[in-house]
Amino acid sequence: MKAVVIHAAKDLRIEEREVESPGPGQVEVAIEAGGICGSDLHYYNHGGFGTVRVREPMILGHEVAGTIKALGEGVSGFAVGDRVAISPSRPCNTCDYCLKGQQNHCLNMRFYGSAMPMPHIQGAFRQRLVAEQWQCHKVANGVSIHEAAMAEPFAVALHAVVRAGALTDKRVLVTGCGPIGALAIIAARAHGAREIVATDVMDAVLKKALEVGADRVINVASNAETLSAYSANKGYFDVQFEASGNQSALRSGLEVLRPRGVLVQLGLGGDVTIPQNMVVAKEIEMKGTFRFHEEFGLAVDLINHRRFDLKPLVTGTFPLEDAAKAFETAADRNKSMKVQLLF
Amino acid sequence: MKAVVIHAAKDLRIEEREVESPGPGQVEVAIEAGGICGSDLHYYNHGGFGTVRVREPMILGHEVAGTIKALGEGVSGFAVGDRVAISPSRPCNTCDYCLKGQQNHCLNMRFYGSAMPMPHIQGAFRQRLVAEQWQCHKVANGVSIHEAAMAEPFAVALHAVVRAGALTDKRVLVTGCGPIGALAIIAARAHGAREIVATDVMDAVLKKALEVGADRVINVASNAETLSAYSANKGYFDVQFEASGNQSALRSGLEVLRPRGVLVQLGLGGDVTIPQNMVVAKEIEMKGTFRFHEEFGLAVDLINHRRFDLKPLVTGTFPLEDAAKAFETAADRNKSMKVQLLF
Amino acid sequence: MKAVVIHAAKDLRIEEREVESPGPGQVEVAIEAGGICGSDLHYYNHGGFGTVRVREPMILGHEVAGTIKALGEGVSGFAVGDRVAISPSRPCNTCDYCLKGQQNHCLNMRFYGSAMPMPHIQGAFRQRLVAEQWQCHKVANGVSIHEAAMAEPFAVALHAVVRAGALTDKRVLVTGCGPIGALAIIAARAHGAREIVATDVMDAVLKKALEVGADRVINVASNAETLSAYSANKGYFDVQFEASGNQSALRSGLEVLRPRGVLVQLGLGGDVTIPQNMVVAKEIEMKGTFRFHEEFGLAVDLINHRRFDLKPLVTGTFPLEDAAKAFETAADRNKSMKVQLLF
Amino acid sequence: MKAVVIHAAKDLRIEEREVESPGPGQVEVAIEAGGICGSDLHYYNHGGFGTVRVREPMILGHEVAGTIKALGEGVSGFAVGDRVAISPSRPCNTCDYCLKGQQNHCLNMRFYGSAMPMPHIQGAFRQRLVAEQWQCHKVANGVSIHEAAMAEPFAVALHAVVRAGALTDKRVLVTGCGPIGALAIIAARAHGAREIVATDVMDAVLKKALEVGADRVINVASNAETLSAYSANKGYFDVQFEASGNQSALRSGLEVLRPRGVLVQLGLGGDVTIPQNMVVAKEIEMKGTFRFHEEFGLAVDLINHRRFDLKPLVTGTFPLEDAAKAFETAADRNKSMKVQLLF
Repeated sequence: MKAVVIHAAKDLRIEEREVESPGPGQVEVAIEAGGICGSDLHYYNHGGFGTVRVREPMILGHEVAGTIKALGEGVSGFAVGDRVAISPSRPCNTCDYCLKGQQNHCLNMRFYGSAMPMPHIQGAFRQRLVAEQWQCHKVANGVSIHEAAMAEPFAVALHAVVRAGALTDKRVLVTGCGPIGALAIIAARAHGAREIVATDVMDAVLKKALEVGADRVINVASNAETLSAYSANKGYFDVQFEASGNQSALRSGLEVLRPRGVLVQLGLGGDVTIPQNMVVAKEIEMKGTFRFHEEFGLAVDLINHRRFDLKPLVTGTFPLEDAAKAFETAADRNKSMKVQLLF
Repeated sequence: MKAVVIHAAKDLRIEEREVESPGPGQVEVAIEAGGICGSDLHYYNHGGFGTVRVREPMILGHEVAGTIKALGEGVSGFAVGDRVAISPSRPCNTCDYCLKGQQNHCLNMRFYGSAMPMPHIQGAFRQRLVAEQWQCHKVANGVSIHEAAMAEPFAVALHAVVRAGALTDKRVLVTGCGPIGALAIIAARAHGAREIVATDVMDAVLKKALEVGADRVINVASNAETLSAYSANKGYFDVQFEASGNQSALRSGLEVLRPRGVLVQLGLGGDVTIPQNMVVAKEIEMKGTFRFHEEFGLAVDLINHRRFDLKPLVTGTFPLEDAAKAFETAADRNKSMKVQLLF
Repeated sequence: MKAVVIHAAKDLRIEEREVESPGPGQVEVAIEAGGICGSDLHYYNHGGFGTVRVREPMILGHEVAGTIKALGEGVSGFAVGDRVAISPSRPCNTCDYCLKGQQNHCLNMRFYGSAMPMPHIQGAFRQRLVAEQWQCHKVANGVSIHEAAMAEPFAVALHAVVRAGALTDKRVLVTGCGPIGALAIIAARAHGAREIVATDVMDAVLKKALEVGADRVINVASNAETLSAYSANKGYFDVQFEASGNQSALRSGLEVLRPRGVLVQLGLGGDVTIPQNMVVAKEIEMKGTFRFHEEFGLAVDLINHRRFDLKPLVTGTFPLEDAAKAFETAADRNKSMKVQLLF
Repeated sequence: MKAVVIHAAKDLRIEEREVESPGPGQVEVAIEAGGICGSDLHYYNHGGFGTVRVREPMILGHEVAGTIKALGEGVSGFAVGDRVAISPSRPCNTCDYCLKGQQNHCLNMRFYGSAMPMPHIQGAFRQRLVAEQWQCHKVANGVSIHEAAMAEPFAVALHAVVRAGALTDKRVLVTGCGPIGALAIIAARAHGAREIVATDVMDAVLKKALEVGADRVINVASNAETLSAYSANKGYFDVQFEASGNQSALRSGLEVLRPRGVLVQLGLGGDVTIPQNMVVAKEIEMKGTFRFHEEFGLAVDLINHRRFDLKPLVTGTFPLEDAAKAFETAADRNKSMKVQLLF
């Protein structure tokens, strides 16, 4: 079978790998669609992020869906031919964090396509993947494989909503309208946010933000003062989803959050400088959100019930052999939201 | 009567002021003790903090206690001769924040000794103060006026504990062991913290921290690695009270907080640079804490019931005429915790 | 002007009343639609509920909307001709509960159409009503007056959702599908409930429940075992909205709630007998929900934005002169959801 | 070795049992003290409780401490001669509840001395017990074995405090001052409760309640009106720990809880009848609390650090051979708080 392997920055290869056989409780899946994520792009463009570096060839990818081809011993509830979305998150379920129900902080996490541990955890951009049955969630008839492969980033957005707490009657600011920001808009709307204002520096993505449910969008490159007008009376927004990883977005949010407002940080960046006195005086709550756990199953369920339409976010699909072109396209925020590979 | 008036940085004067008469619902109090706070020191040393500047002469001070000398019309529950601690916090009780029970974010707050609005809000370092009866809380027999004047900073620490959430079974890190850090240790212990580790860069204050209830103290100037050992397995502490306003203290705390740990920021500084990816990956919750509201009455109640002994924190008292010397002494962290003026 | 006045059980009269003039900050509203609520029915059928009795003639009604006819001095943001929904909740904003942001527990509440205090608080089923401007919320163009008059019961359902906490990924059981139960279904769906099962003893209302968004309905009069099948593995539902006030509904919910499940009690009844050991062993959380506060404005906003369609719930409208017939119709659960009077 | 075995109501026998050998990860403990709990008394007096019946001979007991006599393979951190308190709670750590961190709701729980499953789970009133090392918590020097054997009921009280939420500034009512009520007083005081009022119908236990930290005690058999005076202004208490299982205690608490007050139900009874309208109108939160999980380790830690003195609660000790007499004495609330067996 073929797999998409990163060797170093800009060194992406399509390579042959052995097909594995499903063991007890496992299934073999023919992967059909795989979305390119920001972390995949970091590996592709920079060979890693932060202190993490690719130190050996690694199959990329963790946003995948496909069709079951074979069942291991003792698998129940699945049949050959079932289409499934596959969670890339494989916690150990025995460490202290897992036994507190905080599986996303598992000490022994084996998340697809991660160069953090050595040997690296091989990813899911491959034609055949053997997965545990508990990683697999059935996709309903009528749901396209492209939507199914959106379950993973949607789970990230849903976890961010969980971290934010109940959104009833809340005014929400979303800073950064890439795929994660756009999914946060969808998730926030679906959980009762009263009003959603979204910001970015590109008109193209702001158009998408409106399309998926923002009430108002602001291009802060050209209209920063439109946002800062919300700072009257100590602020306007109850919740900010910061999905850009950009320091300015974070800081401008702190200005327009109300006292006791909650800033949920989704975007990754490096060091950021924040006005500590404002955090103190407004009693702002800044909290990180990282991956997901039970939200993966929820994401598939919501997609299956067609409670939201994620299709507008898939802006490009490329065959496996054009992987490099797919990555280049995905990196261009002006043109792309979510780009998917077809296997 | 005499009052302690700041005119500009290092320009502190003892001046005469007219004694006011108590109106309906008000009492006249002979102030007896007044603690010097970090913000008083900022006015004294720098003429302000952040963008706030002293623009007209202002009486300093907001940590005061004294004896009632006269009652206005309709005052009940108080008698001449009663000793009281006086809350410096005067919210309007009609703005949106007040009507949500968030009086510490009142849009029209009149907090003693604040140069934020113009005209400035005059403070309480004066021989006679006319206050609303609801600002006053009776001090029990046997409680010294020095302890009573600690109610205000203790209320700040108690509010920080409220912000942290329940401390049952929690491991707590306190960074910065000045008066507020020390009071946070006392407040955390009194609310069930399982273990308290305190850090500072001065041995003198760490000795006090041990005395008031820390289980372990670490001088991070000389033993930084002792603290960083707590970063194993993604971290050890559930809660950090950051009372130094120092960027290194904040960052070292982020290293040793567990995933989903809570960092309560008490200390004021300017801009601080934080590792955003760590906040995200560990889902840290950083929250500011600002002043107090109902915690003032609680502070007096706890002091009255002698549930804690705050006396060890009062390290110096000076007569009114030596105010400048008192401020100089208070500013020397090597020698002083809380310095109080006697009127 | 005419008003709908209750004198005693079954003694409902249309009477003349003086039109008041709007004072400063007040508006005069021509009431156009008024929904009949369960408490109105209690006054009509039984002359009161619990220990509360009608002791003097009282205008009924608190679910009203209409058009502004005159403005008092100093009113801003409203114009003659504006259509408004009017909150019947008038807290004092000065008692301890109000200053904690718990206005629905105001010690001096003046809620329209309540026989609790003496003199009674006169209600809003009248042709002209003078209200404070802060009670009024503008109705958007295109929204019918019937939907606008649903804001009050919808606010009750929204407050119940607030009491339940975040509904993300939650399985929800709604017991009792009268107007409040049906509105709870709508509110729960709009705040992210994953799955909603609704029960009642009448097929007619269960049909409505399906129509407004329940995933499944169970007639527990004929299919009790279908519900109790959810008790496997200690239970299935995370949240129950108990909108029937019926003891069996409450008890059957306790059986099928998961450990740590939350039961939000909306329905009023008298004494109910509960299995204490089950509450303990499953650590169930039973919480009452009472009226609303800020949720009234939210309800109007959601209706204005057409996020939900409340029209299917208005099953009958009657002219003022047929008030008694309207009340009789409203009391027949087989035929009616919400019945409204037209003024 | 000898064990205390229940055969049927009032049929308690001292019988010989085989000593087991510790397997990998296990330790063999010579049990030295074992406290008699309410559930043990139910088995003794009634042969069970609710629908649970003793259907085969069962060793009773689950509040035990002793000295390690042998180590199984791979045990680390323990040595022969260590004194340990042993948690009776053995969750599976693999079911859905365990993987959410809700181990006290484990679907496969094996709690010592429980007749719920068949075969019954044998208890810990025996001279030798083989336990998993993770059940064992070292007891500090200077702590008596009697205090160590109080860790289990203390863990129950600590879990109740966790369920109640932060107690800072809270007024607390404890109804029922048997061992669990008394431990709830200690636990509430240690977690910052502002004021604690305790009620019972026996002066003897109320005296103990004062001794362990209640601010005020009320004998509701003779002074019910003293308690009901707290119902002014809709109520006084923020939190009630209901430790009697008695319906009157529950109902009288509902009267004096403030709106949004929290009632934590510890005591077990049968059916209880509650005033639903009061629960609704005051938005009371009633929540069960069941056993404990991580609180066991916390209990031992707090005892080891001598943060509280549990010794006053141990009112009687009996040698193994006088087990029946011990049970009779434990059942007499007038004479006994906690009665322990010595092995």
